[in-house]
Formats: sequence, structure tokens, C-alpha cells
Amino acid sequence: MSNTSSTASSTQDLTTYMRQLGSQARAAAQQLRIASPKLKAQALRAMANRISTNKAQLQEANAKDLIAARERGLDAALLDRLTLSDRALEIMATGLRQIADMPDPVGTMGPTTYRPNGMLVAQMRVPIGVIGIIYESRPNVTIDAAALCLKSGNATILRGGSEAFHSNMALGAIIQASLDEVGLPLESVQVVDTTDRAAVGELIRLDEFVDVIIPRGGKSLIARLSAEATVPLLKHLDGNCHLYIDKDANPEKAQAIAINGKTYRYGICGATETLLVHADIAPAMLSDLAQALTDKGVELRGCERTLAVVPQAKPATESDWETEFLGPILAIKIVDSIEQAMAHIQRYSSQHTESIVTDNLQAAQRFQREVDSSSVYINLPTCFADGFEYGLGAEIGISTNRLHARGPVGLEGLTTQKWVLTGNGQLRG
Amino acid sequence: MSNTSSTASSTQDLTTYMRQLGSQARAAAQQLRIASPKLKAQALRAMANRISTNKAQLQEANAKDLIAARERGLDAALLDRLTLSDRALEIMATGLRQIADMPDPVGTMGPTTYRPNGMLVAQMRVPIGVIGIIYESRPNVTIDAAALCLKSGNATILRGGSEAFHSNMALGAIIQASLDEVGLPLESVQVVDTTDRAAVGELIRLDEFVDVIIPRGGKSLIARLSAEATVPLLKHLDGNCHLYIDKDANPEKAQAIAINGKTYRYGICGATETLLVHADIAPAMLSDLAQALTDKGVELRGCERTLAVVPQAKPATESDWETEFLGPILAIKIVDSIEQAMAHIQRYSSQHTESIVTDNLQAAQRFQREVDSSSVYINLPTCFADGFEYGLGAEIGISTNRLHARGPVGLEGLTTQKWVLTGNGQLRG
Repeated sequence: MSNTSSTASSTQDLTTYMRQLGSQARAAAQQLRIASPKLKAQALRAMANRISTNKAQLQEANAKDLIAARERGLDAALLDRLTLSDRALEIMATGLRQIADMPDPVGTMGPTTYRPNGMLVAQMRVPIGVIGIIYESRPNVTIDAAALCLKSGNATILRGGSEAFHSNMALGAIIQASLDEVGLPLESVQVVDTTDRAAVGELIRLDEFVDVIIPRGGKSLIARLSAEATVPLLKHLDGNCHLYIDKDANPEKAQAIAINGKTYRYGICGATETLLVHADIAPAMLSDLAQALTDKGVELRGCERTLAVVPQAKPATESDWETEFLGPILAIKIVDSIEQAMAHIQRYSSQHTESIVTDNLQAAQRFQREVDSSSVYINLPTCFADGFEYGLGAEIGISTNRLHARGPVGLEGLTTQKWVLTGNGQLRG
Repeated sequence: MSNTSSTASSTQDLTTYMRQLGSQARAAAQQLRIASPKLKAQALRAMANRISTNKAQLQEANAKDLIAARERGLDAALLDRLTLSDRALEIMATGLRQIADMPDPVGTMGPTTYRPNGMLVAQMRVPIGVIGIIYESRPNVTIDAAALCLKSGNATILRGGSEAFHSNMALGAIIQASLDEVGLPLESVQVVDTTDRAAVGELIRLDEFVDVIIPRGGKSLIARLSAEATVPLLKHLDGNCHLYIDKDANPEKAQAIAINGKTYRYGICGATETLLVHADIAPAMLSDLAQALTDKGVELRGCERTLAVVPQAKPATESDWETEFLGPILAIKIVDSIEQAMAHIQRYSSQHTESIVTDNLQAAQRFQREVDSSSVYINLPTCFADGFEYGLGAEIGISTNRLHARGPVGLEGLTTQKWVLTGNGQLRG
């Protein structure tokens, strides 16, 4: 494999090595950019087949990571996420086949306008170019991210967590063998062949060769990368999501939506972290809702008025309004108006996903128009924040950037557009 | 005016001052974001009226800049661009009224999909937030940029060239008085009230308050800002645009397109800088085309094969292929195939605008699909690279970024999107 031929034994070597990966990725991207939809789909199916037929080899590499992880005392949940079980590998293969079957975004065009001088103006989707992915322990990201980037015509440089190093390298070998099989350049997907943390610092400054970095990991990783990167990041820092139950909410729907938003999965970025309840409806429904949440093991932290209705709640502190709990904790505040709810959201939200429960059309429209988050819902739990649920087919992540892609990012977010104009000799001026 | 109350007498003061502008802009943006289309249009018409009725006051401020410019020995062309003549001011007022009349992009929604569970998924255009504009001598940018940003719901911090300082401050006062008249926050548009160059350095690092910087100026300004900015830039470095005359081109059309692309205006970024001609068609038309260009005063610099057909051409050097001449100079190269033409473009182009002249459908489609520039034309001169020509109504600039807006950037490029989902109590999982 081209990217395993050099090793990084010093800082100078590491810089040289990372620049080499970058330069190879840029060259591969020029070929991938114009690769046919059929060829890219063939490569993805070849990867699926090779994963299915090389389980033993992959699990052998994975075993090295698992032994090291047990020695380092990683907890059971992390070990589970790291394990390439037969089932985990089959899920990867199925995912690859699904991505292969999706419509190819490259070359698609939006509406065409016919200008007064008779020329046609349209925009065509094209790949971004080279995408760097920096991620933590789960090796399945190696496959998912490479597959989505390949489908959208981008070359990828993957840098996974050191816990999954051997697994990632083995998956990278499978990917490159599949690319080779169909005649696409091996360097379309490269896994960084060193656990040296300085490689990340190099990658995020490879402006010449890398067009965008997509980090997938905890808030601290992303904050650190944001501070140091010169390559643009497509990222979200955290998901402090709010559900507002309006005075004109249907209480039963509100209860179901609140419980689903909080408890569907505690660890996802779309989980509801703060519940805002209009004072007019709180007496009729908050006590029951709170009890249902308590029964499910959710710890409640309320404002002073909430404590009067929900005796089992603890007093909420300022930091509770700011926190993405990512666990069975919910902050609750009673507000006097939709304006107060939106002001609270504006102050504390991470602009990820917010939702209103209401049967009032004006309240619904106003909330959806005025709340400045990447996703704004009416009568839905915030846990719907996911590319599959939006119909994107798959997602590479969720962006709270204001530029380029915002919200769940699917294949379209991995492309850019160019203007295409067709004329017949029209002249200007 | 809020932004004239503080002055920057030291670095510490300057940092404080720029942060204050940023913080005020952020607060104003929260109001502008939800301002009605009607109110924003009223503000733009108020600006147009105040410009028409305050010509004397504006020209008095402009006179200070003109005196200083003459003392510094600025050339006639620059003095002309700096002058706020009656006609220049009327053009500004007309431009403002045109922007007022354009459809407001904020709140518009794309196609809505109906998901299997019955929820509706769409994307709504919303303002980016706070935009910083850094520009050189022309004071009309103060009005154009402020107007486009205001129309698209963004707050703006404007930093013009020191040559136009008094003119820009006077225009800023007109803008703020107009905002005040209709009840929008003054700080929606702020002109930086110091000629201290360090203010630019502060502005491009105000990540907390500024979402994007749009630089308008020469290549050296933009290269310097790119190297130092932590706020994302929406920019283009240069426009080294190519016209390729294919073997299946209509010779008459090709000649007209080449002449128009080069000579429509030498100083625009869409001017043709290199002409590539297929060897099969060169004998039949290159000599005549070259003579027509020479007659118009265009200096020709050709590859060796070109020199054989065009005796008046000078030999082209490597640097000629790389240069955006922005003047009456054209580099010419004879190529043996469309592949050679595209390889030359890939190597030397600044990915701004390229065009093919051909009557062959396959060649046209291939060129448009494979050339990786922000605009790719068929049978049109490259000088069409302009937002008005594309039907965008106006443009804030042309972007050769790969992320977010690419090519001419109009009102839509000054917005971002949020996902809006509407349900009726659907739950996940």
C-alpha cells in the first residue's frame, strides 16, 4: 500500500509523510472527481464483499487492539464499540451496499434559468476534493466515512483513534484492495499509518492538499481542533437541545414527545437537555410528565417554579442550562411566554436542534422562523436529528457551522456546486 | 452614532473598540434576522433618498479624501474611482432602490419532502449573521455591500481603504440615520472609525462576533488576510481564465467570443487571460483572430507553435501561463486535444471561469463536467462572470472557495439554511 511505505520516525519525517499523503490524495481526487457513478458503486460493493470474506483477517487485527484496550483498562462500553464482531462486520458490509445503491450526487443539476440573452444558467454538484476525517474509537467510522466520501467523489485521509489503530489499518487495506480491484486510485482512501498524535496537528494545517476536515468525537477534541486548524472544519461542538411546550400544546402529545426526546437514547447529540414549559399549561401536565420521566430513571433539575410542581426535582443551577448532559438528566424551566422560551434558547442553545409542541399555527410558525438553530421542529422530539430520519440516506455528521452544510450532513453536504452556463455565441456589453 | 463614540488611541483601546463593534453587530443581527422584508426594503429606500438629498454633505466629506489623495499623488484612475460625483451618488441611490425591490431571500424554503412517518422536512434560508467587509478605495462598496447584507438580514462591519475614510464615514452616517428612521438598530451597519491598519488584523480574528469576512481588493490584500484570518473568508484570489477553441468550433463564433472575453474590460476578474486553440482549427482561424486582437492593441504571447502562425506574438514564458494580466495581454497555446486543453487548465487555472467554443455535443458536455472551476461555459466569453449576468440581481463578489458559495455570490450566498421539520407527534424508534 502506498501509504504504508513511509514511516514517521521524527517530526521532520512526520511532516514529510503527511504532506505525501496530502499530495497523493489531491492527485487521486482529480481522478475520483470524474469517476463514473457505476465505478464508484462497484468499488463500494467490492469493499462489502471483501469485508464479508475477510472476517478472520480483520478480527485478527482487531484482537490486537482489544488486547491493548483491556490492558489499558477500557470500560465495557468502549470495548464493545471497538469490537469487530461478525455482526458488526456484516452491518458494515450492509451499509456499504446501501451507500452503493444510493443516487450519486455528482453531476446532478438544479433548476436551469433561461436568461434574456438566451443563455442557460444552472449549478452542477461536484465533489469538494479532499476530506480529512478525525475520529475516536469506533472503527466502523473508517468504513462509513470512506464510503460516503467516495460516493460523493472525494478523496479521504482518515485518522482514527489509537485504540483502533490495527483495526483501522486492516479496514484501510480492504478498502484499498477494493479500489485497486475496480481500477480507482488506491490513494482515494488513505488511513494515517502512525499513532503519533502530532499527525493530527499536521493534518489540520494541510491547506494545500485538504479542503475540509470533519472531526467526529467529543467536545474537547473538536474545541482543540477548532483552535488550531487552518483547514476549514465541518463540525458541531455540542447539542444542547431544547423542547418548548407551548400553552396551546396537546398535553398527551407533549408528554410523549418530551419523553421520547429525552429517553430515546441519552448519548446522542439530539437528545433533549432542557424542557421549557409555558406557565399556563404547567399545572395541568408537568407533574405527570415529570413522574413519567422519574419512573424512567431521569434525574430532574428545575427552576424555582418547577420545584413547586415537581417536588422530586433538584434545584437547577446556571450551569445546568448550559450543559449537554448526554445522560439521564433533564433541566426544566417554566416560562411565561413563547418570547421567554425563545430568549432562553437564544442564550443557552448550541444551535443544534430545538422543538416546539403546540397546536397554535402562529406560535408554530413564529418559533420555526425565529429560532436560530440548525434544525427547528414543530411537534416532534429533538431526537429526530439524524440524516436517515431526514431522508438523506446516511450522514457523515451534524454541522452547527453557519457556512456550507448545516444540520445533518449527507452526500449533498460532501459536495459543492459549480455554475454551468451554455450559450451559442452571446457576447457581453 | 454609536460607533463613533469610542476612539482607538492604543492597541488595547483598538482591541476593545473592535470587540465593541463586534458585540454591537451581534446584537443587531439578532433583530435584523427576524426583521420583515418590508422594513428592510424601507431602510434601503430611506438610504437612497438620503443620498439624493445629502449630496452636498457627502461631497464635502469626499473633498477631504480627494485633497489628501491628490497630495499623495494618486493617479487619475484612482481619483476618478474615489470621486463622489452627482452621477456616482445617483448610481448608488438607484442601486439601493433596485436592491430594495429584489425578492427577500430570508424565510424562503426549498422543496418539502414528506417522510414515511408523515413528517415534513424542508430547508429555510436564514441570514448568516455578522459579515465583515474589507475593501479598497471605492466608496461605493460601502453602500453596495451594506445594502446586500442588510437585504439578506445580516449585520455588517465595513472597513474601507484609508484613502476613502471621510467618504466612507459620511456614507455610514447616512446609512445609520436611515436605519434609525425605520426603527432598525443603528449597529446593523457599522463603519470602522479608524484608519489604523491594525483594525483589520483585529476584525479578521473576531470569531466570537463575526461569521464571515468578504475581502474585496487586490491579490496581495487577500493573500495576507487568508494567512492571518481565523474568521472564514469568502474570497477569490485571482481570475486566470481560459478560453479553449475546440477543433469543432465555429470559427466566426470563436473569434467573436475570444475578442469579447479579452477586450470587454481588461480589468475584470473574468477577462480571458489564456487562449487554448486546437491544432486542427488553428491554421484556419488563429491568424485572423490574432490580427483582430493586435488591431485592438492586445499584446500576444504565444507558445512555439503559435509563433509560427502569429508572427507578431512574443514567445510566452512559463510565468505567462500563470499570470492574471488584468490588461491588454493574451497568452496563446496550441494544443492537440481537449485532454491537453483540460490538463493545461487544471495546472494553471485559478478555478475562476473557463469556457469552451465547440459545436460538438460530447466535447461540450465533457468540458463542462470535467473542468473543476467555479464557472464553466459553453460557447460564451469568460467575461460573463458576473452576478447580474447570471440573474442573481446583484453580487457581493465572486468566490473561488470550494465550501459555501462558489462563483458569483448574490443574496442567496449571503444566507445559510436551517432544517425545518413539522410533525404531529411522531416519535422515533
